[in-house]
Amino acid sequence: MNIVKFAIPEIIFGRGSLNHAGQCTLRLGGKKVFLVSDEGIEKAGWLSRLQDILHKDGIQWVYYSGVTSNPRDYQVERGAELYLAEGADVIIAIGGGSPMDTAKGIAILVNNGGRIRDYEGANKVQRPLPPMVLITSTAGSGSDISQFCIITDPQRNVKMSIITRTLVPNISIVDPLILQTKGETLIIQSAIDALAHAVEAYLSIIASPFTQMHSLKAIELIQKHLPDALATRSLDALEQLSIAAVSASIAFSNAGLGAEHALAHSLGGHFDLSHGTVHPILLTSVMRYNLDSCVPKMADIGRIILGSQRGSDRSTALAGIERLTEFFATLNVSLQLRDEVGEDGYQFLGPIAKMAMHDACNLTNPRKTTSDDLLQICEEVW
Amino acid sequence: MNIVKFAIPEIIFGRGSLNHAGQCTLRLGGKKVFLVSDEGIEKAGWLSRLQDILHKDGIQWVYYSGVTSNPRDYQVERGAELYLAEGADVIIAIGGGSPMDTAKGIAILVNNGGRIRDYEGANKVQRPLPPMVLITSTAGSGSDISQFCIITDPQRNVKMSIITRTLVPNISIVDPLILQTKGETLIIQSAIDALAHAVEAYLSIIASPFTQMHSLKAIELIQKHLPDALATRSLDALEQLSIAAVSASIAFSNAGLGAEHALAHSLGGHFDLSHGTVHPILLTSVMRYNLDSCVPKMADIGRIILGSQRGSDRSTALAGIERLTEFFATLNVSLQLRDEVGEDGYQFLGPIAKMAMHDACNLTNPRKTTSDDLLQICEEVW
Repeated sequence: MNIVKFAIPEIIFGRGSLNHAGQCTLRLGGKKVFLVSDEGIEKAGWLSRLQDILHKDGIQWVYYSGVTSNPRDYQVERGAELYLAEGADVIIAIGGGSPMDTAKGIAILVNNGGRIRDYEGANKVQRPLPPMVLITSTAGSGSDISQFCIITDPQRNVKMSIITRTLVPNISIVDPLILQTKGETLIIQSAIDALAHAVEAYLSIIASPFTQMHSLKAIELIQKHLPDALATRSLDALEQLSIAAVSASIAFSNAGLGAEHALAHSLGGHFDLSHGTVHPILLTSVMRYNLDSCVPKMADIGRIILGSQRGSDRSTALAGIERLTEFFATLNVSLQLRDEVGEDGYQFLGPIAKMAMHDACNLTNPRKTTSDDLLQICEEVW
Repeated sequence: MNIVKFAIPEIIFGRGSLNHAGQCTLRLGGKKVFLVSDEGIEKAGWLSRLQDILHKDGIQWVYYSGVTSNPRDYQVERGAELYLAEGADVIIAIGGGSPMDTAKGIAILVNNGGRIRDYEGANKVQRPLPPMVLITSTAGSGSDISQFCIITDPQRNVKMSIITRTLVPNISIVDPLILQTKGETLIIQSAIDALAHAVEAYLSIIASPFTQMHSLKAIELIQKHLPDALATRSLDALEQLSIAAVSASIAFSNAGLGAEHALAHSLGGHFDLSHGTVHPILLTSVMRYNLDSCVPKMADIGRIILGSQRGSDRSTALAGIERLTEFFATLNVSLQLRDEVGEDGYQFLGPIAKMAMHDACNLTNPRKTTSDDLLQICEEVW
């Protein structure tokens, strides 16, 4: 086994764990919080709840609301200017991947300077970041756990993957109560994003025993609890999805991802699709594409999904992928790309596949990809 | 599920990972290392190897060798005086639990002052510690991962459990190559220490899904690979034991331990036994004692050990414990307490059981213990 590095934040998990946000801030030496969130979280009341918690612990904050879905480079750069102007000393984000990735981008710039695009790729950030507490509002993105940060460059219409160990926040707060205010589509998309994290991390060429056990646990929990979470919205089921998302995030942060996420970033960047939209469309197709490069590992996934071996490893792997395809078909989300981007989008698939080849997620895919391969996947799911 | 906190160090795992020690030190801002180890590591050549690595990276060190098995309070206190006198700024320990726990004790005192006994128990350390890199030479103690530190108070003949999140080191380096210079007895004792960590953490009243998956993985790997590690000393098998020890440590650091470790500390403190000696003697007896308080969980452990269900959960649990007892009997270590402490030791069992009641490990045991219960366990294994 090669040398592996394994890093995760301190995690505070459970119903009501949001109440720990103030104590976490104080423990990190924070006196003035730079608070990042978005409109959805504001409307659901979680932002004011968090502000009350900080207030009770005597902590000042400045709020930065300039965050949209698929956060842009200029939103990060404006945030960094405000952070410096206000003299903040710790960053807290509450929300999905967008506010959390914006917060991470701001953390890079305030201590390293320059433009956010200077840090695209792996290990480009030299100086340590200010302390960060990230509070996830979805059971999916994993930004609260991971060393990943995805920011859109609107000039190139591309989502930049920024990957470096220093992006692992100090503290991740995962409070399943926050999931209760989320709609069906977001729960599905987040869960399949987490499933894609778990699967791609498991198949990654730098997966280790430490990441693999987390991948398999996440796959098991998502398949078992997503239907119940959708049918009942029970807190128990949402909590299980949160555990799955944390596990999947621990796995992918340390093992990397693969061609599915490379394509997801490229498609998402070009068409300004929310990240969660593309995983139900792409995941099983990319699994079929990768199958012959990792039959034993794909059979492990098959056994988890099916609960048993089905003949050979290859048959088990294929049956597992088939079961996933059937499972996705029962969910109320798009499974064809054209349904999301319209017929006119077809002409852009070639350039999108080429762009995906530059994404750092491709580096750990189990099968060496070409842009023709990626184009073919896009055509398959068209 | 209650709110759970989960914290582990950054882990650098793999053959040759010792070579990363210099870069880790620099990353933590270290200019002058306070280096802690012991005679065994010196003789095996690992200390000079580490010093060469630091030297190549231009890092100064001061070496503190005043460490014995079951490190004493005064050894920690002398170490802290030397650290301060030398103006060191980072602590590195290489060795088993004794040098690593000594290093942790020194880290507490240099930033918090006082005597080490002032910090006995849970959460008594107020101020943050200097950066620590811990390099384990055994697949067992888990001190390189955990928030635990065990120091002997020779006036009371007791091993003090000091437990606080700030004792989690910054970086844990786990290099299975170092295990190759260890003897049979130490490999067995370390593996059963790790097994006890995994079992007690699994049964702990504050276990969580995040710790439980690590417990079960550790139990599986130790049972599977310990015989091969002893028979062949193959690096592959030793590596699997290292993975198991890391998993068990992640589990117990975050879930706590139980009555077995409370007794082990009390017995070890009184008779100056090395920590590893007592686990093969105590573990299955304490499991039988706890069984009725946690049948379903004990059955999970049974299924891992046996590979299948055996009738009811209770039968499966009992069969698992029985299999472990048989397994320990095949190993070349003492299974009766009298063989380690001599007939004269019997008279001290009462006071030892009473002393064990004060150990913080008891707080998370699944069955509420009395000193009579603990005395009975000692008599059973006498």
